[in-house]
Amino acid sequence: MAGLSVPTLRRAWPSLRAATILLFLGGAAAAAEPAPGPLTIAEQGSFFVGGRDVQSDTLSTLPAYAPSGTISVDQIYVRYQNPVGPSRPPLVLIHGCCLTGKTWETTPDGRMGWDEFFVRRGFPTYVIDQAWRGRSAASPAQIDAVKMGRAEPNTLPAVFSAGREPAWAIFRFGPEYPKVFPGMQFPLEAQAEFWKQMVPDWSAALPVPNPTVPALSELAKRLKGAVLVSHSQSGIYPFQTAALDRTGIRAIVAIEPAACPDPAKDDLAPYKDLPILVLFGDYVDASPRWAPRLKQCRGFVAAANAAGGRAELILLPEIGIHGNSHMLMQDKNSLDIADWLAGWIEKRAAVKS
Amino acid sequence: MAGLSVPTLRRAWPSLRAATILLFLGGAAAAAEPAPGPLTIAEQGSFFVGGRDVQSDTLSTLPAYAPSGTISVDQIYVRYQNPVGPSRPPLVLIHGCCLTGKTWETTPDGRMGWDEFFVRRGFPTYVIDQAWRGRSAASPAQIDAVKMGRAEPNTLPAVFSAGREPAWAIFRFGPEYPKVFPGMQFPLEAQAEFWKQMVPDWSAALPVPNPTVPALSELAKRLKGAVLVSHSQSGIYPFQTAALDRTGIRAIVAIEPAACPDPAKDDLAPYKDLPILVLFGDYVDASPRWAPRLKQCRGFVAAANAAGGRAELILLPEIGIHGNSHMLMQDKNSLDIADWLAGWIEKRAAVKS
Repeated sequence: MAGLSVPTLRRAWPSLRAATILLFLGGAAAAAEPAPGPLTIAEQGSFFVGGRDVQSDTLSTLPAYAPSGTISVDQIYVRYQNPVGPSRPPLVLIHGCCLTGKTWETTPDGRMGWDEFFVRRGFPTYVIDQAWRGRSAASPAQIDAVKMGRAEPNTLPAVFSAGREPAWAIFRFGPEYPKVFPGMQFPLEAQAEFWKQMVPDWSAALPVPNPTVPALSELAKRLKGAVLVSHSQSGIYPFQTAALDRTGIRAIVAIEPAACPDPAKDDLAPYKDLPILVLFGDYVDASPRWAPRLKQCRGFVAAANAAGGRAELILLPEIGIHGNSHMLMQDKNSLDIADWLAGWIEKRAAVKS
Repeated sequence: MAGLSVPTLRRAWPSLRAATILLFLGGAAAAAEPAPGPLTIAEQGSFFVGGRDVQSDTLSTLPAYAPSGTISVDQIYVRYQNPVGPSRPPLVLIHGCCLTGKTWETTPDGRMGWDEFFVRRGFPTYVIDQAWRGRSAASPAQIDAVKMGRAEPNTLPAVFSAGREPAWAIFRFGPEYPKVFPGMQFPLEAQAEFWKQMVPDWSAALPVPNPTVPALSELAKRLKGAVLVSHSQSGIYPFQTAALDRTGIRAIVAIEPAACPDPAKDDLAPYKDLPILVLFGDYVDASPRWAPRLKQCRGFVAAANAAGGRAELILLPEIGIHGNSHMLMQDKNSLDIADWLAGWIEKRAAVKS
């Protein structure tokens, strides 16, 4: 790699990495990929934002643990890494349904996740677990109340997991399980690792907006100018966060949002002058679940811009990137997309000096 | 700091950091602590180990998500960082009851966690979430079966959370909530952040040994010589892992284990020639919960050594370190203890060349 400048090397990664993966998976004569090299970070760590105390006397049905006491819920777990001499605004990466912050880490086939890519590109990067998910605590109080006979079974929380067969079409790996769209970029050979990422989802048992939203607001204020990057289920959260308070929000990137604000019902004033990108992958029109969502977001973008907004909606195939699933941050060309997205942020949401 | 060699600087951290915390918390004229400086890592990432497919038709009670499908449970989430030129054996950090891998990260009062400290000391460091905890998936199938009326309430899983008031004595912050032991090292001024670390615990609903155990065995084999570092509830897991298969296990460090193997029932052959450290903090004899556990572990260590073992049991006060709670990896002197532990591992479990 001698003779390549750093920016050139950075641009070269995605395709180089793809070559290695092919090699790893048995691709024939592809050249070995040089590892990206050591990463130097200025600081890293984790913390919680938000949270609410709950007192309960149905926390346990076990003799070894008392049933009564106070727990904290509604907080979000945040893990961050800051590059040395950050030159870009901080990103907050917000995962979707039935998943955790793992979404943005090492891909199922072992490639670098967006969490590290953006740090290498100069962005302080914050990965969260939604409230009541992953390392962000849920409460077992209602489950134990029913187990103790103090509440009826129909009061149990609507906690659910997505089975891989019905999830297949939602993730747009193909029209239905186990059919695959031609040109699919998701590393389906590593799907077993992907299915392990999925955890129970309590969101239907939580108030609207999800408690993640006020926590994101608090986080954005602390970061003093964050780009909120959502995915799927969490697509509406950054918009709700901005509606709550614009303070600290520099831009919104909604990746394959399950919903955009509704111009017929929602005030669009919070989005005036705010850089917004709505980004979708491929095969959207082939999906009965996603095609209407794309259309709904197109309506929002048009209305937001008519009201003084700076919103864009982009389908990856429109810019020459093809074959992407709903999990585009894990697709084989995930770093190509990240590279493009970094450029969008640098151009549209640059730090004001 | 000019003129200090790197090893000297490393040794200086713990006390320097403590000085800063005092400053942060309003301590008067303490000198500002120099930050530890940038961290260069060779590689980082996350993955799952283990896992089992489960088919169910009670995964969801919501119209938007199908009730039938296949999910994966029993896997453990693993996040790792490797130092440049690792000179020490890999550590696997295994959290305890009602907690997640967050245990080992940034402390409640914002100091460096053991996860980063050990990387800086040259140890590849792997932090896990126990099976069915945090980012390691649980299954909602039995909850939804009861909600649907297909199963009785008494079949609900025994999932529990520890309320802070009863947990207070278990963590040995004091004899009972909210009394504090004199000289307490836990940063109680930041306790609100600590309580947010606690999540629901499914372990009582899982088989024995916990599914974390075979997953740890698989991880140790991959790492080809890991030091398994447990805490509290997970204390017995590394011993069970070694009983399953010693392959890949270089040493066991049991921090405040809830139980050690029972010489009256358990085969001690798996522990022959294996470096083992059982480490307890302070105030143990003042705790009706912990005093018997200490005694039980003393019995194990004596029996293991009589059977050719290399086991040690150390109480921190015996080596001049005082005031430590059950959460000693988060106490104000946590990096002093980590420094001592790094020395123990280097001496007793050095990489064989």
